[in-house]
Amino acid sequence: MPMDIYPTRKTIEPTLVFRRDPVVYGGPEDGPIDEKTLKEFGEKGFLTVEQLIDPVEVDRYRAELRRLLTDEELKGDERVVTERQSQEIRSIFEVHRISEVFAELAADPRIVGRARQILGSDVYIHQSRVNYKPGFEGKDFYWHSDFETWHAEDGMPRMRAVSISIALTENFVHNGGLMIIPGSHRTLVCCTGQTPADHYKESLKSQEIGTPDPDSLRLLAEKHGIELLTGPAGSATMFDCNCMHGSNGNITPFPRSNVFFVYNSVDNVCGEPFAAKTPRPSFIASRDFTPVG
Amino acid sequence: MPMDIYPTRKTIEPTLVFRRDPVVYGGPEDGPIDEKTLKEFGEKGFLTVEQLIDPVEVDRYRAELRRLLTDEELKGDERVVTERQSQEIRSIFEVHRISEVFAELAADPRIVGRARQILGSDVYIHQSRVNYKPGFEGKDFYWHSDFETWHAEDGMPRMRAVSISIALTENFVHNGGLMIIPGSHRTLVCCTGQTPADHYKESLKSQEIGTPDPDSLRLLAEKHGIELLTGPAGSATMFDCNCMHGSNGNITPFPRSNVFFVYNSVDNVCGEPFAAKTPRPSFIASRDFTPVG
Repeated sequence: MPMDIYPTRKTIEPTLVFRRDPVVYGGPEDGPIDEKTLKEFGEKGFLTVEQLIDPVEVDRYRAELRRLLTDEELKGDERVVTERQSQEIRSIFEVHRISEVFAELAADPRIVGRARQILGSDVYIHQSRVNYKPGFEGKDFYWHSDFETWHAEDGMPRMRAVSISIALTENFVHNGGLMIIPGSHRTLVCCTGQTPADHYKESLKSQEIGTPDPDSLRLLAEKHGIELLTGPAGSATMFDCNCMHGSNGNITPFPRSNVFFVYNSVDNVCGEPFAAKTPRPSFIASRDFTPVG
Repeated sequence: MPMDIYPTRKTIEPTLVFRRDPVVYGGPEDGPIDEKTLKEFGEKGFLTVEQLIDPVEVDRYRAELRRLLTDEELKGDERVVTERQSQEIRSIFEVHRISEVFAELAADPRIVGRARQILGSDVYIHQSRVNYKPGFEGKDFYWHSDFETWHAEDGMPRMRAVSISIALTENFVHNGGLMIIPGSHRTLVCCTGQTPADHYKESLKSQEIGTPDPDSLRLLAEKHGIELLTGPAGSATMFDCNCMHGSNGNITPFPRSNVFFVYNSVDNVCGEPFAAKTPRPSFIASRDFTPVG
């Protein structure tokens, strides 16, 4: 195995490693994102789209989400992740295979076109899910870089993947929306600790291994600040695989739901995990590298 | 005992009761608050002051807070409330008696003048405390009306008290600041359940009895919305005793601390609890009705 340029979960002390990969691989001529927005994506590691899907589409996807949340056939399915305490559904993975309605959205040119443009190649779906964060007692998601986990546990070699989160409910300042540390995508916080067997079963509910240490996090947050992303249902945020992000809990009555797709470049397909004994199951980290869209 | 016009913790079903008391008792001529702001306070139940104390004062109070957090003499003092899990200090009560520095602030004319103006009489301190909400793992405070507890457990007869929260750290949108439902002060959500003995020992850490039911809360939030209060260190929020308020958790590295004083009208002093066997200790609910300032 060649030397690991992103050696997370391999060091005794937390380490900050500079990104060795581009952020934006394509140009303004390659897709719907304009030059200014593309440049901002390179600098901040994310971009927002005020209205990616229209209100009629929002209604359709919300109805489909409601259907899935009560679908008897999904009861006990390993792709359904529940809250640790209340057993309420928190996420449904591989939703583009479970639902034709969401499969269509995952292949939508408005989304795939942007992903291709950022990654400069054809793309495949590394992961898909719908998230449902109830009101009153929505739990937080602690800070993490997705790439840290995808590299360590899924064998994703380089930083050439992008996520999109499409809001199906309004994100206010007060109901636990996505927080990103802008600019954090240029630094990988290498975490300490070893990946336990079947780590995903716990980490999808509440992650401990693979989360940044407080000092690194404080350093990034004090340098760059924190942005809380708000917007109406139908708005979207695309963010680089190595953005440090998380979300606070939600005691308001307003639930939050969104649909989430991860696109990886077909030139960056996953191999053996870099810091785990066995790869995670394919419903979390796809091994089907067929281009989408 | 006369009929209780605010019968919380006495009904089987949650009940919404209209406020029977004024919100603003004084006029623009009675103090530093201008007519427009006073009117807004009446409508929304709160007001904000962009810079109540200046940066030099902020530094002084922060230094005093740090001193208190590590004061050996306060170890084991019942006035110090710790987090349920981590045992970190969450609040120090009766801080105007523990600290001369905070006693001075509690009697400051900029604060007491406003409290007198709103309540239309001399005022005394019903409760004082400093709150410290650490970064990374600051817990939420669930929704509640202070008056609900003060009436039920402290014997406060009418709605004629006002709180002030003075920020000693910046309140961002993302670090678990105070949320208020504007206009909620005109409705008392009467809660169900009976007050257990020594309820305060648990309720100061995490309240269950005396919190509103989800349906009432949803109704208020959908009618009025939710405001999240942000501002620099030195800014302040004054809010009516019956405002429905709470705060989300805080996973950011930015801690939050504030100092909090409650002024009650000398014409509204506390008697026997309306819905508890014994009143709470005087460090939480003062029985010293001497006017302040």
